[in-house]
Amino acid sequence: MTYFCSFPMKISIVKIGGAILEDNELLQNCLEQFMLISGPKILVHGGGRTASDFMTRMGIEPIFIDGRRVTDAQSLELVTMTYSGLNKQIVARLQALGTSAIGLCGADLNLIKATKRPSEPIDFGYVGDITSQSVANRVLLKMLDLGWTPVISPLSHDGKGQLLNTNADTIASVLAQALQEKADVRLLYVFEKLGLLKDVNDDDSLVPEINGDDFTQMKQEGSIHSGMIPKLKNAFDAKQKGVGFVAICNLDNLVSLEKKTEVL
Amino acid sequence: MTYFCSFPMKISIVKIGGAILEDNELLQNCLEQFMLISGPKILVHGGGRTASDFMTRMGIEPIFIDGRRVTDAQSLELVTMTYSGLNKQIVARLQALGTSAIGLCGADLNLIKATKRPSEPIDFGYVGDITSQSVANRVLLKMLDLGWTPVISPLSHDGKGQLLNTNADTIASVLAQALQEKADVRLLYVFEKLGLLKDVNDDDSLVPEINGDDFTQMKQEGSIHSGMIPKLKNAFDAKQKGVGFVAICNLDNLVSLEKKTEVL
Repeated sequence: MTYFCSFPMKISIVKIGGAILEDNELLQNCLEQFMLISGPKILVHGGGRTASDFMTRMGIEPIFIDGRRVTDAQSLELVTMTYSGLNKQIVARLQALGTSAIGLCGADLNLIKATKRPSEPIDFGYVGDITSQSVANRVLLKMLDLGWTPVISPLSHDGKGQLLNTNADTIASVLAQALQEKADVRLLYVFEKLGLLKDVNDDDSLVPEINGDDFTQMKQEGSIHSGMIPKLKNAFDAKQKGVGFVAICNLDNLVSLEKKTEVL
Repeated sequence: MTYFCSFPMKISIVKIGGAILEDNELLQNCLEQFMLISGPKILVHGGGRTASDFMTRMGIEPIFIDGRRVTDAQSLELVTMTYSGLNKQIVARLQALGTSAIGLCGADLNLIKATKRPSEPIDFGYVGDITSQSVANRVLLKMLDLGWTPVISPLSHDGKGQLLNTNADTIASVLAQALQEKADVRLLYVFEKLGLLKDVNDDDSLVPEINGDDFTQMKQEGSIHSGMIPKLKNAFDAKQKGVGFVAICNLDNLVSLEKKTEVL
């Protein structure tokens, strides 16, 4: 099967998560901004908080070790339902905005084939580890070439019938790394804050740019939050693997990118 | 956007539901048979029983009027999750069998655009009514031409951001009607019985063929069950709209079609 790409590709990969997915209005604002991004684009969404809320409603306590979810069989069933349901709701909303969206996970067309994380030293359960080699580049490029907009939920698979829970920030980073071999890629981590803030309560403390040395220093100072550390690590991974533009930005700045934290 | 189809299309549309989706082994057997069907194919699945079980686990009583689900906002959220999660599990299994499956609902790429059922005389809630005009034929043909196997869950959308619950038997029938304008189509309703049985407990009572007159007579005699009536109605609708071959068959007879009830 050969795929032909008919135009020079400049691809935007946008990751949304956190509070955006839990607030109808924020999500709508964000999707309206996403719709306005010109050129081929991919939306990656999380859903961890939504899944945890749902599990709590079912009387199941989500388990975390070092801030990372332990995905046992029952949790996998529930995160699969939560992420996949959310995925289709986002697709329906994007369709209403005129974006030709298609909701996918890593199992669809073998898009993201992962390795189940080893159970030592910590058994995180049904969790998939991925690299840029995990991504079915050609299939994604074909869809983008057809004018379709993939909306990707944070599930991968092992190719043997097993779905695996995979961090959405990592999926976005790995997709960007894989696609930059074929096209100019920009990767945007979008959330409810302006970007990386030195003081999380002060928008004036926005850090406009961050390099690896800054990152190390800010971690040491404790001015980067725990959840921000893996997000920035994924961002730096993408940048180091050649992704042209990587930034952390606010959902209202998706198009203008007037305010952001650029990862150098 | 123009789509080009590179081969003469003979398309199989297979609907699975009922007990198959609730039994891991039956589902695996069925998918192994489905995998063996040659040529372009589409799998449509239900999930109503699974959704009802799940709702019961959550302490929510599913509501039915005349055997049809009432889908209020909360039920829609839960059926969306159940169907979409099931959809991705089926895709992962088909991938393991070497089938290039892609899990979709009616919102993806505007595949099935429905009209919300009027709230009079009975308000069934978020339920979508569809015809063969609802189907984005060209998109499905493009996927089949690429060698992809769509796996379709029973959700449509209204094009305004609203997902709608839609009967899977009807989706299969309507897809067959829409695609037969472009290709030879055969439509298979697959379940755990051999086909239409005069006596549900006696496999020897298999009805090998049924026409409209037989259907009317068997309904009058009461030898066709309540759940089978709408299924057969969907099957006859497809046949009358020109679908070449329509049958009700067992999951073990998907390829050989040795035993079946052919709808004439």
